[in-house]
Amino acid sequence: MTMKDAFVSYIRNLQDRICTRLEEIDGLARFQEDLWKRPQGGGGRTRVIANGAVFEKGGVNISEVHGELPKSMQDYFGVKDAHFFACGLSLVLHPVNPMVPTVHANWRYFEMYDPEGNLVDQWFGGGQDLTPYYLFDEDAIHFHQVCKTACDAHDPMFYPNYKHRCDTYFYNSHRKEARGIGGLFFDYLKATESRSMQDWYDFVTTVGDSFLDAYVPIVEKRQSHAFAKAHRDWQEIRRGRYVEFNLVHDKGTLFGLKTDGRIESILMSLPPKVQWVYDHLPAAGSEEARLLEVLQNPKDWV
Amino acid sequence: MTMKDAFVSYIRNLQDRICTRLEEIDGLARFQEDLWKRPQGGGGRTRVIANGAVFEKGGVNISEVHGELPKSMQDYFGVKDAHFFACGLSLVLHPVNPMVPTVHANWRYFEMYDPEGNLVDQWFGGGQDLTPYYLFDEDAIHFHQVCKTACDAHDPMFYPNYKHRCDTYFYNSHRKEARGIGGLFFDYLKATESRSMQDWYDFVTTVGDSFLDAYVPIVEKRQSHAFAKAHRDWQEIRRGRYVEFNLVHDKGTLFGLKTDGRIESILMSLPPKVQWVYDHLPAAGSEEARLLEVLQNPKDWV
Repeated sequence: MTMKDAFVSYIRNLQDRICTRLEEIDGLARFQEDLWKRPQGGGGRTRVIANGAVFEKGGVNISEVHGELPKSMQDYFGVKDAHFFACGLSLVLHPVNPMVPTVHANWRYFEMYDPEGNLVDQWFGGGQDLTPYYLFDEDAIHFHQVCKTACDAHDPMFYPNYKHRCDTYFYNSHRKEARGIGGLFFDYLKATESRSMQDWYDFVTTVGDSFLDAYVPIVEKRQSHAFAKAHRDWQEIRRGRYVEFNLVHDKGTLFGLKTDGRIESILMSLPPKVQWVYDHLPAAGSEEARLLEVLQNPKDWV
Repeated sequence: MTMKDAFVSYIRNLQDRICTRLEEIDGLARFQEDLWKRPQGGGGRTRVIANGAVFEKGGVNISEVHGELPKSMQDYFGVKDAHFFACGLSLVLHPVNPMVPTVHANWRYFEMYDPEGNLVDQWFGGGQDLTPYYLFDEDAIHFHQVCKTACDAHDPMFYPNYKHRCDTYFYNSHRKEARGIGGLFFDYLKATESRSMQDWYDFVTTVGDSFLDAYVPIVEKRQSHAFAKAHRDWQEIRRGRYVEFNLVHDKGTLFGLKTDGRIESILMSLPPKVQWVYDHLPAAGSEEARLLEVLQNPKDWV
């Protein structure tokens, strides 16, 4: 089996596993599936959940697209007349309860071909990261510990490297604060003398397999936590920062918007209800202020 | 009096006039004023209204800033070691009632100097545009008629030109729809053989003076209009498109975010409460669908 076929088969299966588990947890809402085709080649399977008991809005999407490399990407990669294949799973979950963090994950594989159809480049990318509204240290430690365990099975340098890249990437530079408390981010994982594409496949699928272990125990622990309107307001204000990151800084989102991607699949990442309050500042010493301190100074959790 | 001093004095006075009139209309909320200084030179007077009877959130801000031209703007204008002065009034109003449109306006003046401090370039820019959630044709006609009258006092070509530029600029290309029903947009209004900077000053201040006449009658007509939760949901969903435009496409916002502008003054334009609903489509033949049709095909209102 080619790497391409192997990874497509992996993400299809992973999408099923994740959706099944999330529906069990929610108990009320079910994922709605949209199959879509890309006019220039390929398509996707978007699955969206909304107005659940646990998940207010979320999407777990896969796509497999191919064709001529769009002009803007040819320029970006410095190639001409290239063709490509890309596939990946992308998910974002926005829970109802402000004590349950938002989570984002993505695992993807890319191939590039010359005009004769010869494979000239290939790589994996992805990661997973957590965005809490209230900070429970034990949840942050649990999430990062699962990320670290997945990484350590392959190389002890992976966790520190990809944790650092996650803190650097998911950063709202205009606010001088991180989007959340991080996790893993990696890209352009290519074959080297010491590591084959199969090694990278094994690594990325280990991370993908770790997702439910990283997130589900946190949801189960916090989903019945009591909350008041003030907690919910804070969650909606912080969701505004999530929107700001995705629309101003996220390369994947902007790339999709500027190259005629499927808008609704790209923007399913945006939260359901959001507030912007002028110059909102949490009270000194509050739980809200403690979250901001950590977002301004990313911590080593494990 | 220099052009700079004249325009600064004009926007200070206009800010007072607009805020006074809007407070009269609201009857409940008052503008809160924040004076701020820019470390590299200049500052501003931000005035924000929130949780009013008519205005859910709004800002009417002036700024007067000067100093070395930021590196990114030097590159943009193709100049070196330039200094600048910029001043302007910028306003956005988000009403409570979905039958009352959101409005945006901006009038600004820019000067550029060589390293010896000689004035090497100067221009005006700005405009005003309307974003309804429900379309009352007579309101759209009224707004555009006031814009046209202000333009026609100076040149019969201004209204068609600046109306067209407004439709082109305030466009969510990723949605293939306009942000609203337009108005006026102009930039780089510079002295020519047939038109002096004083002529442009007279034109821009005529437009500034027309703002209350363009917007206030619409507010007065619609502010007591009955509405249901479904209208409010639609307003919040459409406000999401407003956020998408401002964060993805608006050059002024992105420039501010990427050059260390005062974040809270820049992002006061974002609506107070917003929704993103996956793949939301209004029912065929509904008022909501009629709005979308007009946004997808900008009309000539006068």
